Amino acid sequence: MTSHFSEGGGTPTAPGRYVDVNAIEPVEFVPGLEFRPVLGERTMTNFVHFEPHTEAPLHQHEEEQIVIVLDGEFEFELDGDVRTMKKGDVAVVPPWVPHGARTKDTRCDEVDVFNPPRKTLLGHAAAQRSAGGTPTDTGPA
Amino acid sequence: MTSHFSEGGGTPTAPGRYVDVNAIEPVEFVPGLEFRPVLGERTMTNFVHFEPHTEAPLHQHEEEQIVIVLDGEFEFELDGDVRTMKKGDVAVVPPWVPHGARTKDTRCDEVDVFNPPRKTLLGHAAAQRSAGGTPTDTGPA
Repeated sequence: MTSHFSEGGGTPTAPGRYVDVNAIEPVEFVPGLEFRPVLGERTMTNFVHFEPHTEAPLHQHEEEQIVIVLDGEFEFELDGDVRTMKKGDVAVVPPWVPHGARTKDTRCDEVDVFNPPRKTLLGHAAAQRSAGGTPTDTGPA
Repeated sequence: MTSHFSEGGGTPTAPGRYVDVNAIEPVEFVPGLEFRPVLGERTMTNFVHFEPHTEAPLHQHEEEQIVIVLDGEFEFELDGDVRTMKKGDVAVVPPWVPHGARTKDTRCDEVDVFNPPRKTLLGHAAAQRSAGGTPTDTGPA
């Protein structure tokens, strides 16, 4: 194969795991806005569900963020530039850039990738790691 | 609001940007397997399209990876544990854990989050940053 698939080896630092996101108990800082964080070692993916007419108010933070819309749509505000984002749309939010989002008549499902993990979600994500994750079965066949 | 939306301030390190993933010219290490990387400062999200009957062979790397299936399905192999992953399914791949994926009769779209950015895609991602991204319009109203 190519070099992309043929790097050297190393020692795994943890077992791999499959995660059932729907099994994660959501955090709801704002009514209608559900957060289901999945935590790696250095990266957090936060699965977010917006009910219709729900707002994540304009805010900023030191963590880098990449937004990926999975389903539905919302109005995203990024440093004053407001656009409708739909399934497959992506936004990159560098540290401290103000951003917010709101749904109108539709729901929206999206994932926020945070790096480093967003501090305000770390406790919840760590608690849910075992609840939502199923480690790979590497026992004897 | 809550503390989640009311942290202190700081100086943005770069402009925010909206990214049209479909405008990114894909890298194809294997026929039928298209990579469209979107790069932040510390994080890479790589949008991957599998045609039917296409394989990303078993491999391992030092970068942490989180896999999110966006559409379709594929068979994922994670440290010997093979499962069918469909839209919304997630897997966490710690550093050096062997993994691979293959489609059967269907296509699959998924996103791989790499941290740190996957070295073998860095050059392409940097080249495509301007092509695929549209910085926010923060000019005078």
